Amino acid sequence: MHALEHLFNPKSIAVIGASLDEYKAGYQVVFSLKDFPGRLYPVNPKVDSILGFKTYPNITAIPEKIDLALLTIPAAACPDAVEEAGRAGAASVMIISGGFAESGEAGKQLQERLMAACRTYGMRLLGPNTAGYANFHAAVSANFTPWIMEIKRGGIGLISQSGAMTFTISSLLHARKLGLSIATGTGNGADVDPADALDYLAQHSGTKVILLYFEGIANGRRLYEVVRKAAKQKPVVILTVGKGNVAEFAASHTGNLMGSYALKCAALSQAGAVVVETVDELIDAAAVFSQIRLEPKDEPGVGLLTGQAGPSMIMTDYLRSRGVVLPELGKTTVEKIRKLLPMSYIKNPVDTTRPGPSFPEVFQAMADDPVIDMLMIFAIHEPAVIDPVSLFERVKGKTRKPVLFVTAGFPDAVAGTVEAVEKMGVPAFTSPNSAARAAAALVHDAKAACSHPGEAVDLFKEEPPFENKTFNEGEAKDILDRIGIPTPTRAVCVDHEEALRAFRTLRKPCVVKVLDSAISHKTEVGGVQLNISNEDALLKALQRIDKIQKTRDNRRQYLIEEMAESGVEILLGARNDPSFGPSVMVGMGGVAAEAIGDTSIRLAPLSVGEAKAMLLELKGRRLFEGWRGSPQADVDSAAEAIVEIGQLISAHPEIREIDLNPVRVYEKGILALDALFIC
Amino acid sequence: MHALEHLFNPKSIAVIGASLDEYKAGYQVVFSLKDFPGRLYPVNPKVDSILGFKTYPNITAIPEKIDLALLTIPAAACPDAVEEAGRAGAASVMIISGGFAESGEAGKQLQERLMAACRTYGMRLLGPNTAGYANFHAAVSANFTPWIMEIKRGGIGLISQSGAMTFTISSLLHARKLGLSIATGTGNGADVDPADALDYLAQHSGTKVILLYFEGIANGRRLYEVVRKAAKQKPVVILTVGKGNVAEFAASHTGNLMGSYALKCAALSQAGAVVVETVDELIDAAAVFSQIRLEPKDEPGVGLLTGQAGPSMIMTDYLRSRGVVLPELGKTTVEKIRKLLPMSYIKNPVDTTRPGPSFPEVFQAMADDPVIDMLMIFAIHEPAVIDPVSLFERVKGKTRKPVLFVTAGFPDAVAGTVEAVEKMGVPAFTSPNSAARAAAALVHDAKAACSHPGEAVDLFKEEPPFENKTFNEGEAKDILDRIGIPTPTRAVCVDHEEALRAFRTLRKPCVVKVLDSAISHKTEVGGVQLNISNEDALLKALQRIDKIQKTRDNRRQYLIEEMAESGVEILLGARNDPSFGPSVMVGMGGVAAEAIGDTSIRLAPLSVGEAKAMLLELKGRRLFEGWRGSPQADVDSAAEAIVEIGQLISAHPEIREIDLNPVRVYEKGILALDALFIC
Repeated sequence: MHALEHLFNPKSIAVIGASLDEYKAGYQVVFSLKDFPGRLYPVNPKVDSILGFKTYPNITAIPEKIDLALLTIPAAACPDAVEEAGRAGAASVMIISGGFAESGEAGKQLQERLMAACRTYGMRLLGPNTAGYANFHAAVSANFTPWIMEIKRGGIGLISQSGAMTFTISSLLHARKLGLSIATGTGNGADVDPADALDYLAQHSGTKVILLYFEGIANGRRLYEVVRKAAKQKPVVILTVGKGNVAEFAASHTGNLMGSYALKCAALSQAGAVVVETVDELIDAAAVFSQIRLEPKDEPGVGLLTGQAGPSMIMTDYLRSRGVVLPELGKTTVEKIRKLLPMSYIKNPVDTTRPGPSFPEVFQAMADDPVIDMLMIFAIHEPAVIDPVSLFERVKGKTRKPVLFVTAGFPDAVAGTVEAVEKMGVPAFTSPNSAARAAAALVHDAKAACSHPGEAVDLFKEEPPFENKTFNEGEAKDILDRIGIPTPTRAVCVDHEEALRAFRTLRKPCVVKVLDSAISHKTEVGGVQLNISNEDALLKALQRIDKIQKTRDNRRQYLIEEMAESGVEILLGARNDPSFGPSVMVGMGGVAAEAIGDTSIRLAPLSVGEAKAMLLELKGRRLFEGWRGSPQADVDSAAEAIVEIGQLISAHPEIREIDLNPVRVYEKGILALDALFIC
Repeated sequence: MHALEHLFNPKSIAVIGASLDEYKAGYQVVFSLKDFPGRLYPVNPKVDSILGFKTYPNITAIPEKIDLALLTIPAAACPDAVEEAGRAGAASVMIISGGFAESGEAGKQLQERLMAACRTYGMRLLGPNTAGYANFHAAVSANFTPWIMEIKRGGIGLISQSGAMTFTISSLLHARKLGLSIATGTGNGADVDPADALDYLAQHSGTKVILLYFEGIANGRRLYEVVRKAAKQKPVVILTVGKGNVAEFAASHTGNLMGSYALKCAALSQAGAVVVETVDELIDAAAVFSQIRLEPKDEPGVGLLTGQAGPSMIMTDYLRSRGVVLPELGKTTVEKIRKLLPMSYIKNPVDTTRPGPSFPEVFQAMADDPVIDMLMIFAIHEPAVIDPVSLFERVKGKTRKPVLFVTAGFPDAVAGTVEAVEKMGVPAFTSPNSAARAAAALVHDAKAACSHPGEAVDLFKEEPPFENKTFNEGEAKDILDRIGIPTPTRAVCVDHEEALRAFRTLRKPCVVKVLDSAISHKTEVGGVQLNISNEDALLKALQRIDKIQKTRDNRRQYLIEEMAESGVEILLGARNDPSFGPSVMVGMGGVAAEAIGDTSIRLAPLSVGEAKAMLLELKGRRLFEGWRGSPQADVDSAAEAIVEIGQLISAHPEIREIDLNPVRVYEKGILALDALFIC
């Protein structure tokens, strides 16, 4: 049995703080639960019954160990009540009240007391500061919005940090005639956080697709792992915020820190979720995933057959500009269609101009083409011209490829068709952008399913952990050599004589750098002397470096390196994110690119394929493709380096930060010109 | 009277090709027009009447000069019929059939014949290949989709190149209970193109807001000018495609070329339109502009007052990430609200947690704050907690600032509130992203209204036009000097001796370049020798340049220049776009930035303010702000240079292309290091 089964599918519920006052949550919650098929125990020492349910003076007086104690009392009274519930053997607790971690220091302490009591008695806690949940399959309405049960039962599971968003999203799903399985808030997520709820819905048989709205999360790493597991079972669609500056507002809301928006989006998408930016995308994805899901595929092909051009122009434009491929149809397919529609535009989309009698055959020809993984059909609602129901009946069983139907027409006129078509397992849309968003969600889900986690490899496991210090460049580059990232041939020297000897063995020209872990901006203090090709120049360079003020190291060291050839410059980095853990970053190098912020980010460890995808999603990727007569750049070697620093930081959380800037990417191989490790 | 009045508001209509066959457009059009309050003349030599209307054997037999001849006959028969309509004195013609320019060469010629006849008789032509139009205020349904008249009459004018998009957008407006004034297709736009229709709607008294969907347009410049004029009267919202690759599909659709997506979006937004990417944005903008419009302002401030945090988090995030400002509230405002809501989050947004009795006073305090130009109010639909109608009644007349209301609830439950609130002049939304899109549209419209066209200045007007040739760098820089763009001090020399004399007068180090209009990639042939600081080095540089193969110029010339200091590198360009005319471009300089494509584009001539906005919308703009210890860059001088090349290319369409790459921007002033003019 899942650890949250008592919470989300209780057989017995106590309402602590049950009330006769219709304006209080203590009444509303009992009212919400009036059709609960299990055993309901309102707790109130002052009255005998509420809404026909016998009350109990306290939780201990209830004649069974209850599955869920539902608290509708003020924050200050909650810790004792939780303690009492624990003593009474309750399996789980839910707290609606706010006034905890989201409200400041005193609230944080109250929340800590709740958690302590829960830990003592092994209870799970939903909330505090949550609107509650509704389990539509078990008829549990554990919340103060009774009307939510008007929504039909269905396959959509919904998790939200915000009660108002639970309600907003539920309302919009209801408006689209979509049904819910379980909808739950997580509020402050003191114990049960979005990851826990997701883990529950992943194994919940009534849930076909999981929607999640969250703002920030303390343990992002666990969310990443739970999403990875869940997405293997069913589609996970995540709406989050943080593209704009809402960090402070969010902290005031659920007490969660926002963290990096780019990182959380990349991480959750890497885990296999479809990450969306708007409620519309969330609803459209929910609508389509309620019916269909594509097989995992690196680049699923979408075929579009249209009765009229305009709305399909909108869809094609939306999909192509978001990297969804409408592949060229095979020669045989085109020939087959050409015979049916000699005058039409037969590419992808196929534009029949107005759907004629050959429409089903054209559909079939497209469905039979192996480049097509899913089909979209658009036709204006014109019953005299095309009947989608008989179209789909005619082709039924002749293809197993998922189909989306898109139409345009007045709501009353199209409603019947939409319903009939959906009953046949074909999701139907009445707006081209809705349909395009849904198709994009299907494709992104199928692509994300191909992302595999990398292996954790620790080349240093026989050694003591990295010291709590900043390495100097020479030491940092020695580590790179060991993990397989090429660095320039070099020598570390402590005086001019050593430097001279080393210089004689190196390929000229060389670069001479000050070697000092306390100097992180070497160039700015004159600590990098380039293009040293003779011994005179070397001496001058050393003298210039000697003028740099000594730091805490209190000794002068020089790093003499062979100068690297020019190549495409990138920067590689790794960080331990407080919420999401080890992560890697790659960016285009050079001042302008850094100012532009052309970067890509992922969690580590990661696969070479994922690392390569990072490089290819950089806006400046054309630089890798032989830009203006330059040779192509060795993206594979760069990807391997990303994997390697990812493995290192994954195995060694004591490393806070790795910065390789720049790394030159050549036609064959790469070279890390500078390296910074902070532990 | 507007030139299109006969077309869009006819008193008499002839239907050429009227038919008794219900499946033919010739029947459907007559059926659509059955409630036309003017005089309807079906033309058909074989029957006496259609749908109760007396028929005429030909247009000449009609007893008056008709306003509009509506052709529902095959393409091949159209040119003669247009000719006949012209002879019969028709003022305008509309052609539904396709098979013209969109279908290939033969169709192009047919279309040319139509146009010739129209020109001969001074008739205006709508189409060919158009679904027609509907004038809801005059009850003219000139199309083959009679049911479109079920849409209520309202203030939204709609122009679309695609008939299916006219219908799709109309249906979605109808679903949102919004009303139309005139909805028209333009099809191939052989004569009346989207710009003409827009010009008509701009002066049409029943139209409050104009929506336009188009793919490509032959005369983009005229559209730009008409939009600029129209947007002064009423909001113009434009949906277009081309972000993804749909060029070929679009050409097959309306015969229009797509052109540059970036240029058309920038140009139309510069003209004052709100340019959107999805049908949703179009509908949301239509909904809000039907009710309100903001005063022109550079940076309107949005205030957000919310009953619950989640949905407002979505809105805040959407708005902030799109550059809409939710300004910090004034100290007095915060103090006023603090007294009313001691425990709440009082920034912008103000989060009341749940709307309480002080909600109207908080609203008033925010509305009174001078930093606020419009207010958004969110509250979940909870009639027991808040009644928006009485809220707006209470604050009515106490503020003139526009207000948007956003709620969440089941469609049946909220419908009444939405309707009542809208009747009070407050646009209402039931989805946070819809509301945020609407607010963004309001703000972008108010900002766009501040964009003024630049003045056309011609410093060369007393001189002959620029020759049809490519200038060499020296000549090009001489032109820059005349229009006020600084260039390095330099000398043009024809032999080594001249070069040596010039070198002695210049500040060292110098750069020596080959000067040859036929060599556009000087660096790649060794034609740029940098860092020349003594005469020996100069001689060697000249010798190296002498080795470059001679071109059509067949003589060697050298350009010797003082080398420029380092600075922020940008590139400036100007082009004459085939559709939109003179345009200017600015981009971040450097290989990586060019590969990333960090550019901004506008039509010329343009104002300094607009040019500055171009610079500040570059992703790498941080480079101008004193990046990593560098000084700030002189954005004003760079903006002036953009204006100056814009003036030059506007006054001299014979210049096809100007490329200044790089231009260095210093703490004070700029310097164009290279210049290319192609005429």
